[in-house]
Amino acid sequence: MKYTQNYKSFFSENINDYNEQIRLEGLLAFENRISEGKTNILQTLNTENFIISSEFSPYYNRKLESQYLSMPVNLIIDNSIASFNELDKISIESRYSILEKSLKNVENRFFELAYATMHTTGQSFLMSFQASGPHACDRVMETIMIANDELTKYPSKVNWQKDLGKFNLIIDKDYRTISKGIGLVIGCSTFPTWNSVTGIYANLMCGNPVIVKPHPLSIYPIAIFVEEIRHAFKLAGYNPDIIQMAVDFIDKPITNELVSHEAIKLIDFTGNSKFGELLEGLKNKEVFTEKAGVNSCIVDSTDDVQKLCNNLTFSVSLYSGQMCTAPQNIFVPESGINSGEDSFSFDEFCDLFTTSLNNLVNHPKAGPNTLGALQNTNTLERLMKLNTHKNAILKSVRIVNSEFPESSTYSPLVIVLDEADFESYKEENFGPIVFIVKTKNTKSSINIAKEIAINKGSITCLCYCVNDKMIDYIRSEMNSVYVPVSFNFKGAGFVNQHAAFSDMHVTGGNPSGNATFTDSSYINRRFIWVGNRYM
Amino acid sequence: MKYTQNYKSFFSENINDYNEQIRLEGLLAFENRISEGKTNILQTLNTENFIISSEFSPYYNRKLESQYLSMPVNLIIDNSIASFNELDKISIESRYSILEKSLKNVENRFFELAYATMHTTGQSFLMSFQASGPHACDRVMETIMIANDELTKYPSKVNWQKDLGKFNLIIDKDYRTISKGIGLVIGCSTFPTWNSVTGIYANLMCGNPVIVKPHPLSIYPIAIFVEEIRHAFKLAGYNPDIIQMAVDFIDKPITNELVSHEAIKLIDFTGNSKFGELLEGLKNKEVFTEKAGVNSCIVDSTDDVQKLCNNLTFSVSLYSGQMCTAPQNIFVPESGINSGEDSFSFDEFCDLFTTSLNNLVNHPKAGPNTLGALQNTNTLERLMKLNTHKNAILKSVRIVNSEFPESSTYSPLVIVLDEADFESYKEENFGPIVFIVKTKNTKSSINIAKEIAINKGSITCLCYCVNDKMIDYIRSEMNSVYVPVSFNFKGAGFVNQHAAFSDMHVTGGNPSGNATFTDSSYINRRFIWVGNRYM
Repeated sequence: MKYTQNYKSFFSENINDYNEQIRLEGLLAFENRISEGKTNILQTLNTENFIISSEFSPYYNRKLESQYLSMPVNLIIDNSIASFNELDKISIESRYSILEKSLKNVENRFFELAYATMHTTGQSFLMSFQASGPHACDRVMETIMIANDELTKYPSKVNWQKDLGKFNLIIDKDYRTISKGIGLVIGCSTFPTWNSVTGIYANLMCGNPVIVKPHPLSIYPIAIFVEEIRHAFKLAGYNPDIIQMAVDFIDKPITNELVSHEAIKLIDFTGNSKFGELLEGLKNKEVFTEKAGVNSCIVDSTDDVQKLCNNLTFSVSLYSGQMCTAPQNIFVPESGINSGEDSFSFDEFCDLFTTSLNNLVNHPKAGPNTLGALQNTNTLERLMKLNTHKNAILKSVRIVNSEFPESSTYSPLVIVLDEADFESYKEENFGPIVFIVKTKNTKSSINIAKEIAINKGSITCLCYCVNDKMIDYIRSEMNSVYVPVSFNFKGAGFVNQHAAFSDMHVTGGNPSGNATFTDSSYINRRFIWVGNRYM
Repeated sequence: MKYTQNYKSFFSENINDYNEQIRLEGLLAFENRISEGKTNILQTLNTENFIISSEFSPYYNRKLESQYLSMPVNLIIDNSIASFNELDKISIESRYSILEKSLKNVENRFFELAYATMHTTGQSFLMSFQASGPHACDRVMETIMIANDELTKYPSKVNWQKDLGKFNLIIDKDYRTISKGIGLVIGCSTFPTWNSVTGIYANLMCGNPVIVKPHPLSIYPIAIFVEEIRHAFKLAGYNPDIIQMAVDFIDKPITNELVSHEAIKLIDFTGNSKFGELLEGLKNKEVFTEKAGVNSCIVDSTDDVQKLCNNLTFSVSLYSGQMCTAPQNIFVPESGINSGEDSFSFDEFCDLFTTSLNNLVNHPKAGPNTLGALQNTNTLERLMKLNTHKNAILKSVRIVNSEFPESSTYSPLVIVLDEADFESYKEENFGPIVFIVKTKNTKSSINIAKEIAINKGSITCLCYCVNDKMIDYIRSEMNSVYVPVSFNFKGAGFVNQHAAFSDMHVTGGNPSGNATFTDSSYINRRFIWVGNRYM
């Protein structure tokens, strides 16, 4: 069960490792589901009250017509309460083995999961496959392994003996982990499984029944996990209502009713900062958030400006800047940068960057496959509004995806600003929007990046610098505001990607979120140790 | 560094293990300090602004006239901020060794510490010695050992390699612990060191400079720790302002100014529930509380009612019920209890209990040595008010302490109530006040104890029961509201005592507090992991 922070994976991210039949079965399952409609979420309810979801494919540019079982919030909570004692009685070891089994069953559905993710989030097929499937499952493995460690940290029994001189004082002691209550996991629209599965599985390991409230635009992908977890508990002889889904619609949300219910003791949330902060302020609830953030790229110097640009343009284009880890603000000194023996002025850097970006997005295959599609119309509206900005040096244009002619795919917009234009770049501009900010010097870049991290939150910082002393300074300054730094990423390493077992995701120290995938607090906040004594 | 939950101690609690000279030196130091007045708290300040504290000896029945350096809050915070970078640069290993060294120096002053504790808290000399000295220091050792484990959990560096088929993606990664900021530790009047040292040392291990705000009635004991920690940092070549004291007076408190200061990022608090809850609600501060609680004793059955009564009367008498772990409500079924082959009616049990209590408190030596003295006049007023209760079966009387004729020492008051009198016993009645509550049966006792734990908080539950099935039921029910149970304590095992390395103190799961001495959350909430990547 032990592992280090070296590379580790339990599920292959390489599509070629899976046989063609599994892939076809996945496609078929997906097509059946969206044509036939009804999900097979096996929730305990006698009536069949299916309703059509708000899910919309940005590739087909139409609603999916998928249907889900709708249940009143109180009924869901009652089911959850009824399952509580049962989950409590399952040993940590059995929970681990049941949950591991559920992942194996999800693995058989990785391709269905990939299509479901693609057509709800707008991620490319490859990203949909990797992020929702193997990467999410590896994060689960990491979580349940850490949970297993934390939950078995103390011995179940000790015979405590204290020498009192004339005799020994002997007390038997036991240590137990007591669950906190029902956990609500609120999903986001862009990463419906990757961002939610750790909270779901961490809760179940700790004995907390789970209610999953997916984003109304992205229900299908996480429904696959919920189905397989329910299935695994049922097969092991337990009440499957240990995990349930609470489905709602874009125009008829139920989240407020759920979060304010007194039976809900834990909330995992991925989404906007305003609602996240509201949740963090709730009394008597343990709340885990990942909120919005504004990520910086600090460009100081490099040994290869072309590789820098290729890496950076890929990172800002990947899923059209809809990743919480994507850089938004690229800080470049007004004096330009050194690259090996050469130096490049600020304008020359901008030219190299936009050229590299154009090359990527206009490549007939790599372009649309990197960009994916815009998940929702708000993002497109924001993009089109900024597209007329007077300092736009590269406007966003629609990119043709030959496989999906209706696809909502757009190239990133690049706007050049001065550091004094703070108000224009200090907020998150979600989507394919990049600001190149001209700063006085690198120290100024760092100070601005820090100020944004403190006030708006940052999940990542990408940095290009070849001076060891400056690297150490940047690391120390950005770490002091709880932002991890990725230095000199080139080639196949991208700042956007946080690997299970190695890269902690969100530090929890700045406004981008209050929790980390996965440190021990992510587990320990979900249960209570109680020690009893017997004479 | 590893330990199990078996008995472990680094400091002897046996006074006979210390030589007579150390004891005399301690007494002399204490007497010098309270006659000469000025403390030698070496805070960085050019002016000498000493003021007389509110400390009052319940044994001498007079003010101590001790003096402490008074500094404006802003100056203390500025000093703390100035020490921040320095503490940050001390390695975890060095922090551990400096802090361990400070304990060794405190050990040389255990007797001074004992007298200081005795004459500010009213604890007996033996309890003052043990609780403030070896027991507090053992809890520190536990805390810094766990902190060391948590702070070194991830490797400082890894070389991460991922096989991408044609080549390996290689990324160097490092993992760093980033401190959260200045930690304020607010002490209580009854256990000025035991309840505060874990927060102080945990913060220092995690890189958070500390400001100690002792209770104005109990400054001297914790001042000894602060002095020795400052001394140890100074000796190691560091700025001693890494830890400072902020002293105030009963009629001119500074706590609100401190807790609302934005530079304070962590607060450790032991004290009343109202203020504790206010602190828990503060935004952007990590808050650790131990608040009030109402502890139950559930009497179901026993194999030796006399031993039961002897143990229970000692637990309610020890330091006159001023321990946060002391039982207040003794629940006994109206049908009485079985003891081995015999059975005892409710009234017979009450008789045995009060007889045992009388024997203890009226013993010329054991009585005053167990009871100690009442720490403050509020407790005495509360006691005297309830002493006229119509159902008092044993009234509180003043107990003569021949060594300290002025001592504020009183025997416990025992009142018999019916379970229907819930309003009368549901609150904490701090001090030597015991309610024997007649319940319908043991299940009723459990339900009431649970309700009190949920609404008012409980730190401990003592239970007498010889039926294994019922033991398991009681354990499970009380654990479900996050209360640990001590079963069938007799002889030298007392529910009041929580041993370092073995008994977690306060579960953090009910209103008696939100933190535990010492689980990993107690450490992990004080710092942030940040991982950086390098290509």
